[in-house]
Amino acid sequence: MTAHIRPVPLEKSYRLLNHGPTVLVSARHGGVEDVMAAAWACALDYDPPKLTVVLDSATRTRGLVEEAGVFVIQVPTALQAKLTHAVGTTSLNDDPDKLHRAGVELFEMPEHGLPFVAGCSAWLVCRIIPEQSIQSRYDLFVAEVVAAWADDRVFRGGRWIFEAADPALRSLHHVAGGHFYAIGDAIDVSSG
Amino acid sequence: MTAHIRPVPLEKSYRLLNHGPTVLVSARHGGVEDVMAAAWACALDYDPPKLTVVLDSATRTRGLVEEAGVFVIQVPTALQAKLTHAVGTTSLNDDPDKLHRAGVELFEMPEHGLPFVAGCSAWLVCRIIPEQSIQSRYDLFVAEVVAAWADDRVFRGGRWIFEAADPALRSLHHVAGGHFYAIGDAIDVSSG
Repeated sequence: MTAHIRPVPLEKSYRLLNHGPTVLVSARHGGVEDVMAAAWACALDYDPPKLTVVLDSATRTRGLVEEAGVFVIQVPTALQAKLTHAVGTTSLNDDPDKLHRAGVELFEMPEHGLPFVAGCSAWLVCRIIPEQSIQSRYDLFVAEVVAAWADDRVFRGGRWIFEAADPALRSLHHVAGGHFYAIGDAIDVSSG
Repeated sequence: MTAHIRPVPLEKSYRLLNHGPTVLVSARHGGVEDVMAAAWACALDYDPPKLTVVLDSATRTRGLVEEAGVFVIQVPTALQAKLTHAVGTTSLNDDPDKLHRAGVELFEMPEHGLPFVAGCSAWLVCRIIPEQSIQSRYDLFVAEVVAAWADDRVFRGGRWIFEAADPALRSLHHVAGGHFYAIGDAIDVSSG
């Protein structure tokens, strides 16, 4: 399952999110694990790499993220559209069996006590940079990316290779109500 | 040129950005107009609609946005990949002829004294919500969306219809260095 997972240099990690995929946010605290979908995650800086993510206060994941101070952002694949929609529309508060029912399988990475979602194409370990004012008013979190990995079947040499990979590994881009688009064809513009 | 432009209800305007396209940011102040590309723009709230956008302090557009307090976020099309890359890699500070050279054509919308980029698929007029602390530290701007339009050949009835439209109208998703992906196939997950 993890045979294709390779570290991504931190200075290249923004590229995992630069094309605007819908992501999964996972966290663990006090023996509780949760995963939610988030379309509102965005790169914020290159070095050190930072990102923003909007986490609604109604979600259980938000509470776990705040308690733990660390979380994982992962990029789900086209094959995981149903899983992504499921974890984005059900709450662990209402269904203690949410993750199992959604088909989420979690795995560990050495030296990171965090729940990683299996089958994704990329994973970014994030540490909250406390910004209490915007967290409270906008549900907006700023975090530093402290480690990153990707599946080398679809991200290699510091770049996505969707055009050469299995279409099932393409990233998902949610519009609304379970209506997604997969990422599509490459368009290269030469400089100069 | 504007025959296909239709208003988008504000409560649906987040959908214009939800799938993570690279955008163009345009602004005008004191008779100066500029347009830049931004991959780091993201929806922030539904009602009233808000968004975040990262504007590097080295850009001329950033200064115009700060002076004017209002700006336009627009969604460029696959046909505009070269234009998007050009306005994202040259500065008006270095080349006063930047917009002309990049092939940017601007137009006006009644009652909005702002420069709109022709040929895009969607336009959002944004008003800055002053957050001086995060503007200074992260180049991160929060804004309210106060008006929105889309090209009805590709966004209709409150949703993108990329799968039914001319592929030249697909949104662009920048990874790095002029390497973009167009948005791809639709994937619909039924609820329940």
